[in-house]
Amino acid sequence: MESFISVDRQSDFSLQNLPYGVFSTASNKRKRIGVAIGNFVLDLSAVSDVIFTGPELSKLNEQDHPFKNQETLNAFMKLGRPTWTEARGALQKALSANEPILRDNQELRDRALVKQSEVIMHIPVAIGDYTDFYSSRNHAENVRKMFQPNESPLGPNWLHLPIGYHGRASSVVVSGTDIHRPNGQTRSDETKPPVFGPCKLMDFELEMAFLIGPGNELGSPIPIADAENHIFGMVLMNDWSARDIQKWEIQPLGPFLSKSIGTSISPWIVTMDALAPFVTANPVQFPEVAQYLRHTDRFNFDIKLQVELHGEEMREPHVISNSNFKHMYWTMKQQLTHHTSNGCNLRPGDLLGSGTISGPTKDSRGCMMELSWKGTDPIDCGNGVKRTFLRDGDRVTLKGHCDNGEFRVGFGECTGKLLPAIDYFSK
Amino acid sequence: MESFISVDRQSDFSLQNLPYGVFSTASNKRKRIGVAIGNFVLDLSAVSDVIFTGPELSKLNEQDHPFKNQETLNAFMKLGRPTWTEARGALQKALSANEPILRDNQELRDRALVKQSEVIMHIPVAIGDYTDFYSSRNHAENVRKMFQPNESPLGPNWLHLPIGYHGRASSVVVSGTDIHRPNGQTRSDETKPPVFGPCKLMDFELEMAFLIGPGNELGSPIPIADAENHIFGMVLMNDWSARDIQKWEIQPLGPFLSKSIGTSISPWIVTMDALAPFVTANPVQFPEVAQYLRHTDRFNFDIKLQVELHGEEMREPHVISNSNFKHMYWTMKQQLTHHTSNGCNLRPGDLLGSGTISGPTKDSRGCMMELSWKGTDPIDCGNGVKRTFLRDGDRVTLKGHCDNGEFRVGFGECTGKLLPAIDYFSK
Repeated sequence: MESFISVDRQSDFSLQNLPYGVFSTASNKRKRIGVAIGNFVLDLSAVSDVIFTGPELSKLNEQDHPFKNQETLNAFMKLGRPTWTEARGALQKALSANEPILRDNQELRDRALVKQSEVIMHIPVAIGDYTDFYSSRNHAENVRKMFQPNESPLGPNWLHLPIGYHGRASSVVVSGTDIHRPNGQTRSDETKPPVFGPCKLMDFELEMAFLIGPGNELGSPIPIADAENHIFGMVLMNDWSARDIQKWEIQPLGPFLSKSIGTSISPWIVTMDALAPFVTANPVQFPEVAQYLRHTDRFNFDIKLQVELHGEEMREPHVISNSNFKHMYWTMKQQLTHHTSNGCNLRPGDLLGSGTISGPTKDSRGCMMELSWKGTDPIDCGNGVKRTFLRDGDRVTLKGHCDNGEFRVGFGECTGKLLPAIDYFSK
Repeated sequence: MESFISVDRQSDFSLQNLPYGVFSTASNKRKRIGVAIGNFVLDLSAVSDVIFTGPELSKLNEQDHPFKNQETLNAFMKLGRPTWTEARGALQKALSANEPILRDNQELRDRALVKQSEVIMHIPVAIGDYTDFYSSRNHAENVRKMFQPNESPLGPNWLHLPIGYHGRASSVVVSGTDIHRPNGQTRSDETKPPVFGPCKLMDFELEMAFLIGPGNELGSPIPIADAENHIFGMVLMNDWSARDIQKWEIQPLGPFLSKSIGTSISPWIVTMDALAPFVTANPVQFPEVAQYLRHTDRFNFDIKLQVELHGEEMREPHVISNSNFKHMYWTMKQQLTHHTSNGCNLRPGDLLGSGTISGPTKDSRGCMMELSWKGTDPIDCGNGVKRTFLRDGDRVTLKGHCDNGEFRVGFGECTGKLLPAIDYFSK
């Protein structure tokens, strides 16, 4: 399956991918929905009537149409799997090498295909609620080893349910947004009072997240057999974390201001249809999980992940972590089903994060706290550059892709630069 | 100051109150903004052009007008204090006994004044994010006494910062919405595996919450001197809680599914202008709080609070708690300033809860876990009825009001009934 648009074999945006995003251009500041293909973005608002002629999409009137006047993907996401499948089929056909509808219409191509180098990407969804899980076993075990070395490798509940917590939706931003080092209360010396000032242990977290399509009503759980129909697609996510603020504030109600500094997501949502060829064996779960969390179909994905750090004193970015989404212990179906098991309602566009994804090896750890073993073992960034936690000016870039030897489906990147803290009292 | 509408001295909705809400009627299902006065609701969409002739509101065009075509109060709330003050002045004038504009216009009165007994109340705001604090010292100390009796009365951070956590916005509902007892994982016996099924320790939490007016940009904290300008008003709140689910899931990231069953808020938002006459001394804070949290002006409020329980076997509701908002240790200004101190952005309509409000006496405790001392000391509900935790069919009603001997400003009620758990696997 090839496109009439030339797509490099190493491009994340093959004809098998077709991720959705929201973009604008300098010449047209209106936010609109696009699909990435090679080095281009296909502007769906420009081709909607020509391409989407199937029954699900053509029956919608102008106002409800998910691609015509929408500034986010929520309207599309809530329509559900039949519409998603129809849209994907229509897009693959319209972009394929054998289909003349776009290929041979120079005027339409000029209007509808925009170079990626010329677009401004925006947050692709209006996120109602953001939940973050804690589903990487290696990560959870490393945290215990560092901070509770005399305890069992995992907390008593960890293997029984996918631990998660409510995050802050307002501070979720699109890749490219720079993040200020936060001020906050910390107490590094327990014999002295806490101090207020710039965070000293600033970290990233390598995560992925999935986005909810159709939601559920309050009081109506989504059983695991139906979970897949509620999952639209995935993004890369960096949950910027202030470790010293986190340590002081976390008891007894969990992380708060250490986690609402900014949470960056990649702009392109890769659909579950695009990820289907990369499904892999589920993690072995022992002890057996409760009945409501059991599924036998495979719903784990082989997604290669990478973290690059680029400090201001570094000539080029340095890869500091190589991980894989498949290291997750809990599947997304289990996370979603657990989340709604109490009747909690999800809404289209809700964001559910994996938690930091760490692999079993030292170089596959997903945050600086683990990579530098809470600062005791500096990370070698090449050319004599070392890091324990982030320095002002550091740029962190997450990348992710799948490749089965035949084609590649990737996420592009999720990047952000750490700016210095503001001077709180001189404001 | 009296209204031409007869208002009982014991009514929560005096001319000094004028809380805002969103309502519809059987004959007009459109959601619209109203103000409560005595037993009536003034439909602002019907009187907007006649009443709101001041410079702030009359300069807005039809589309941006906060009272004409809005289904929530967000548009009004984000306009800020000058507009709020102007609107309140215009409403007090139009409803006063000496002002003919409404009083003498029978046709307009018939259109604009609706009996409260005939309205359906809706959620008054679109809540972007919901945060819950833990700011009642008596509550926090009771929790420690029950669960960590050998530890100090408060955790090490409690007196230094207002502890809070991100809550779930999707499950915030308006008073009158019934709540299903949740299913969930619990482990009452640590020697046996956890079980999945209906919560056995279902509780309410007596709280109040405030709502954000103008927000702030990510990375731009709100200093304490400016905090008041971002607080629009307050509501009663019942944060329904599943104590057994909470206990099993809480470590290490905080409460999750135990708190996203439903959070009920009262439909009428009482403004800070209406509460101003009831300001009272701030709590004594020792040790002295950090500089960014210091304010010397009074921002604590004398609001009498009551919880009624009405079980199906009970002839009438029984008051099980008498508390007061003034028992809070941290002020709302401190909560807001702390929340944004890391640069976290608040948005108009965000909801910030107090946490359970307990007073110093046994009968002023704000949840059943404290009232029954984790089930060891059943609550006497009269006529031989006892409770430790909630039973199916129990209705919980929160009430709150201020009275200075001259006039009363009240919140109406926040009520909800506990429905039985659904049979999870028969769905």
